[in-house]
Amino acid sequence: MKRIAIGLQYDGQAWHGYQKQDHGLTVQDKLEQALLEFATVPLATTCAGRTDAGVHASEQVVHFDTDLNRLPHAWVRGVNAFLPPSIGVRWAKELEGDPAEENFFHARFSAQARTYHYVLYNHQVRSPLLNGRAGFYHHQLDVERMQEAVKPLIGTHDFTTFRAAHCQAKSPVKLMHDIQIRRQGDLIIFTLKANAFLHHMVRNLVGSLVYIGQGREEVSWMGELLAAKNRQIAAPTFMPDGLYLAKIDYDEKWALPQETSSQLPWF
Amino acid sequence: MKRIAIGLQYDGQAWHGYQKQDHGLTVQDKLEQALLEFATVPLATTCAGRTDAGVHASEQVVHFDTDLNRLPHAWVRGVNAFLPPSIGVRWAKELEGDPAEENFFHARFSAQARTYHYVLYNHQVRSPLLNGRAGFYHHQLDVERMQEAVKPLIGTHDFTTFRAAHCQAKSPVKLMHDIQIRRQGDLIIFTLKANAFLHHMVRNLVGSLVYIGQGREEVSWMGELLAAKNRQIAAPTFMPDGLYLAKIDYDEKWALPQETSSQLPWF
Repeated sequence: MKRIAIGLQYDGQAWHGYQKQDHGLTVQDKLEQALLEFATVPLATTCAGRTDAGVHASEQVVHFDTDLNRLPHAWVRGVNAFLPPSIGVRWAKELEGDPAEENFFHARFSAQARTYHYVLYNHQVRSPLLNGRAGFYHHQLDVERMQEAVKPLIGTHDFTTFRAAHCQAKSPVKLMHDIQIRRQGDLIIFTLKANAFLHHMVRNLVGSLVYIGQGREEVSWMGELLAAKNRQIAAPTFMPDGLYLAKIDYDEKWALPQETSSQLPWF
Repeated sequence: MKRIAIGLQYDGQAWHGYQKQDHGLTVQDKLEQALLEFATVPLATTCAGRTDAGVHASEQVVHFDTDLNRLPHAWVRGVNAFLPPSIGVRWAKELEGDPAEENFFHARFSAQARTYHYVLYNHQVRSPLLNGRAGFYHHQLDVERMQEAVKPLIGTHDFTTFRAAHCQAKSPVKLMHDIQIRRQGDLIIFTLKANAFLHHMVRNLVGSLVYIGQGREEVSWMGELLAAKNRQIAAPTFMPDGLYLAKIDYDEKWALPQETSSQLPWF
């Protein structure tokens, strides 16, 4: 038995999220159907981070165990032949060693950090070319105010304020490594890296940051929200359209052929 | 009677091209339906350049005549409220003067030049995030070879070799102002500016340039193709997915509030 890791990219617009469901209209359902068609045996998959309906991934990481002998590029091309155009395998890697070993590679449990981008189109008029692929906000946002506002979030904190009611995480305490916010023309790109994220955490953070960027709330509000540990007082969850799972960090010893940057393909 | 010009952006994936058809599934059909809903009277529209099925526009220009008094931003927001998310009005401008005057503004006949982008994803593996929004070629392409190859195309030439069989243009002679080809990561962006384009001309040019970029044909081939005036000897038409109508040039006296750059929103 060997363990294969793959890099999976998808446009989430057409799918009911990552995790498989009875109706079969999820990214995981389509991936496992394609694996079955290529491998001719069912292969159960595990991902690094489940994404919600409408959320995209420039690089999700997934693993599965198999006895089949296939070269990495055969897994890529073979599985892609059975996937819809909005989902694709970008790379595959057979991990050295026995999956039964202690602390062997596991897409979810070996992940050291996750990076998400939130792409926001900040313009008076909506852009059809960014439909479903970026959040949209029509009032001018002040990036410097938002950059200042996120400072209290860096480090280990209880993120209860930014946690969805139905979140299944054992603990609301997460380690936020970094939050970068930059303007690129009419786009504002939020890049967040943490050991793990709570359900809706990025979209909830962006929702409150937009209130600060617009001037509706003070820069200090973000720290106050965090300290309050109360979801009710923060801004509503922002739309999923602009959210991209971009990078999963693993120990270098696994030597995954991950994309050289965590950038979206058009940046 | 007054003449209104609008800037129209669309994602062409869902539509059977720009020009209206009996089935109603075109950009122009959707625009005229939205104008009818907003204005409550039918308004006939004229565009600068018709685009094919699957081709996008970051800025198409359209005009129509009306007796209605509406502020420009009312045309933008009002019509957008009735358009699907993949089509949108970006700006509107009421032109000063009488549409019956000689040489008055006309979206098509006043256009001095058109600029198109062709976005090509040049990578071994397809990208789901660029599905429908970029052409795809899996062999490595040499941008410098293609830059050299286009030099004979600049100026006034008979572009019969790059003209679709069913093209309705009166003359195959067009003035090519400029062709820029640049690499941005794994994307190659072709930007072509001419007084006008024949049907399929950009996609036919890109198809042959890819043969040169791959090394399958010599750099001198492009000039030979042009001189031959024979569609049969050139490469096949490239896929529509990466083609964007980006900019229509008009005399500055019309003072259209066109986007400040002819860039795509994510560049």
